[in-house]
Amino acid sequence: MNPAPYAYLRGDFVPLDQAFLHVSDLAVQRGYGIFDFLKVQDGHPLFLDYYLDRFYQSAELMELVVPLARPELVAVLRQLIGRNNLPLSGIKLLLTGGYSSSGYEPPAQANLIITQQPIALPTPEQLARGLRIISHEYVREFPAAKTINYTMGIRLLKRLQALGADEVLYHQQGAVTEFPRANFFIVRQDDTVVTPAANVLGGITRRNILGLSGRPYRIEEGPVTLHDVRQAKEAFLTSTTKLVMPVVQLDDHVIGSGQPGRVTLDLLHALTQLEQQQLTQSYA
Amino acid sequence: MNPAPYAYLRGDFVPLDQAFLHVSDLAVQRGYGIFDFLKVQDGHPLFLDYYLDRFYQSAELMELVVPLARPELVAVLRQLIGRNNLPLSGIKLLLTGGYSSSGYEPPAQANLIITQQPIALPTPEQLARGLRIISHEYVREFPAAKTINYTMGIRLLKRLQALGADEVLYHQQGAVTEFPRANFFIVRQDDTVVTPAANVLGGITRRNILGLSGRPYRIEEGPVTLHDVRQAKEAFLTSTTKLVMPVVQLDDHVIGSGQPGRVTLDLLHALTQLEQQQLTQSYA
Repeated sequence: MNPAPYAYLRGDFVPLDQAFLHVSDLAVQRGYGIFDFLKVQDGHPLFLDYYLDRFYQSAELMELVVPLARPELVAVLRQLIGRNNLPLSGIKLLLTGGYSSSGYEPPAQANLIITQQPIALPTPEQLARGLRIISHEYVREFPAAKTINYTMGIRLLKRLQALGADEVLYHQQGAVTEFPRANFFIVRQDDTVVTPAANVLGGITRRNILGLSGRPYRIEEGPVTLHDVRQAKEAFLTSTTKLVMPVVQLDDHVIGSGQPGRVTLDLLHALTQLEQQQLTQSYA
Repeated sequence: MNPAPYAYLRGDFVPLDQAFLHVSDLAVQRGYGIFDFLKVQDGHPLFLDYYLDRFYQSAELMELVVPLARPELVAVLRQLIGRNNLPLSGIKLLLTGGYSSSGYEPPAQANLIITQQPIALPTPEQLARGLRIISHEYVREFPAAKTINYTMGIRLLKRLQALGADEVLYHQQGAVTEFPRANFFIVRQDDTVVTPAANVLGGITRRNILGLSGRPYRIEEGPVTLHDVRQAKEAFLTSTTKLVMPVVQLDDHVIGSGQPGRVTLDLLHALTQLEQQQLTQSYA
């Protein structure tokens, strides 16, 4: 068994299995904190700037101060990546409310914890099978911020299991938003690719898909209803670890052919190429 | 300086300043957990049965298993109270999602942490002054469960400070519900005392007020709108630590005379008597 990878905890590098927080932390007391999650391949943190932009933005939205300026944070990430030397991993940047003597009022100092752990990408079998999803009416409290509040998503895990479904898609009065940990796209019958614009977290993979050029179809943000999903030719989710994953069923309705579609697979291919380009670039 | 009181952490008694959780805990990773908070006076945990009822109910609603059966939990509380020997304190029962290897899926074992710390009751000056409150549209995600998600309440602290207000009262489209950490009552012009019934946590002090008998006015649950509050003769909040606290202003509107009212102070007196009765009773 390999030793635990190193983590960064409130200013120090410690083995992950020794990374502890005092129970007075506002994450423990009040679920208060934000985070981000990025992928590292062969020593390269992919799309690092985008993830750091979002991390600092989430902190600001929740009135938390990241204790490291951006160049310092990048230096810490570089050290951590060098020490752990993992071939394919995820790095989690976690900023909690900090140690609060009252257990409610945020202290001046937030707690920054950075962990790195191996991850696995979807297998060809998972890709070929696609995902079956269910819908649930819910909007996150602060959609623009990546807060640590996943109470609803976790509370729905047993329902997913009972129904044999893979993921839950949130909507508000039929207007589709996002998954707990991923964004959502449909491919309309005219091949236009659309992802919901309102009440969603700005996913980095979502952003990369929206930024693709040179495809023989349009890719855009816009309203998507549950009805639109049922009428769609294809559907897929995007996330840092799941990349582009076909969605083949919503509740009792089979989407399109019930198989991963041509446009979905084309976008997965394009995203993979974009990631490969990152591997040839260095980070500051 | 006194040494840190003892806490109960995952099966052991440890000094509070040594009570740490691994960062893989689902409270840290995903804000997932429930808690309860009760008052201990001169060795007596007041209304213990009610608090334990609610604690186990919150756990069940969030699909967490309390690792101790109720008689064992009471024995642990008795030990903790005996060891710490504090004259007036609050005990927090915290049940977090537990150490999750995936950082998302709940493990079989939740983490139980019990802390005890001195508390202060409201001063006569605070009571005489009363509270100024503001309204904010928000409903907690799981109103019946005492989850640790206080993201909204904490996020609103700076607004309270900027406006010179003490507390924020949640409402949904004008239907008043509760404070982040307290229940709300109004006294109508006919002296009827009313507390909102829907989308609120079942507060123990609220329950005790509703259970009072022999008053020359009715005390009941029912819908309360922001308009009702502005028309009320008196208003107050109830909580374990704040007991019955007069509310004298809502947003820009002075409630009643702007002073703590007769019915409010009568109920505070009755609650204090009820608490004193508890001190003469033992707990199993």
